[in-house]
Amino acid sequence: MLPDPIKKFVEVFSKLPSLGPRQATRLAFYIAALGKNKVKEISQAVAALNDLTPCVQCFRTHAGNGKLCPICSDPTRSKNLIAIVEKETDLLSLEKTKKFNGWYLVIGELHKKGELEPEQKLRLQSLKKIVKKELGGKAEEIIIATNPTVYGDINAVTLKKELEEYANKITRLGRGIPTGGEIEFADEDTLSSALEKRS
Amino acid sequence: MLPDPIKKFVEVFSKLPSLGPRQATRLAFYIAALGKNKVKEISQAVAALNDLTPCVQCFRTHAGNGKLCPICSDPTRSKNLIAIVEKETDLLSLEKTKKFNGWYLVIGELHKKGELEPEQKLRLQSLKKIVKKELGGKAEEIIIATNPTVYGDINAVTLKKELEEYANKITRLGRGIPTGGEIEFADEDTLSSALEKRS
Repeated sequence: MLPDPIKKFVEVFSKLPSLGPRQATRLAFYIAALGKNKVKEISQAVAALNDLTPCVQCFRTHAGNGKLCPICSDPTRSKNLIAIVEKETDLLSLEKTKKFNGWYLVIGELHKKGELEPEQKLRLQSLKKIVKKELGGKAEEIIIATNPTVYGDINAVTLKKELEEYANKITRLGRGIPTGGEIEFADEDTLSSALEKRS
Repeated sequence: MLPDPIKKFVEVFSKLPSLGPRQATRLAFYIAALGKNKVKEISQAVAALNDLTPCVQCFRTHAGNGKLCPICSDPTRSKNLIAIVEKETDLLSLEKTKKFNGWYLVIGELHKKGELEPEQKLRLQSLKKIVKKELGGKAEEIIIATNPTVYGDINAVTLKKELEEYANKITRLGRGIPTGGEIEFADEDTLSSALEKRS
């Protein structure tokens, strides 16, 4: 019943976060009706994401082509303070507070069961290697900045176990953020006090 | 702060229905992290929408390249019965009932104020031309299948005025569909009785 290009679009897009099959179908017809030039523009906007590469240190997506991202290459930032975040959007929210002067590790979205994926283990290995090599084996502080939710708490326990020997202090963000909420959606003030009151 | 390809993606995608800037940002990082092959596949799924063209009679999107769509070229379908729908997804829902044996005009999403866009006027002109040429000036029945909402009602009045002289009977779908709801989300039974009880 559906034309093949629509079917394929729905198949691909309904797997993306917050897009179900119904939304994807509507989106497909909507985009198709925008005309050749708009379709091309949208397709190219997707393809251009391939110009991005992960930062070799913090693993966040940036346009640096195998080099360090602007945060990791900033010499005024403290190497001894590390924040573990799940997603780039969490990192961006923390950066907006202008109260954090360390560096990050983007670990990727965490399992609900508190297990780490192979890729996530590799990222932790990379962090540990840097701590050993550049900080003499222990960072001053690692902030485990997972969401203040049940799953975020479970994963924080896993991460704490992994990193215990690599920092003098392991902290989490202060519970200024309402429990059950998400870092990405917290306003800057709440997030600022959460940074200040970390424990 | 955001890398250019992410910025561009967000700019383009946040204009699409049901995607705000926040959702688009998350989507951009999510897709970027899927890796080169997946990004390519998604980009191509969008580009392939350009293989679709509107049916020259009903204007719905199909893969026919300037020809009639399967419904419009089906000789067993009554030419004398026409349903005006806003979107392809509405058409698909009506087709699923298997109770409609006429043809469609996809008019495109209607203004809240009940005004028709130039493109929508052209589509009505095309319909009128077919009615004049092939049905001697009057179709037996035109069903105005807009949503049973305030805006759908306003637009139905506009469309009725436009089409009054081109059909013996102008009807709307029976209010078996709960008022305030949307055609696309109605189950098949409700939609079947709405077709049967049109008035």
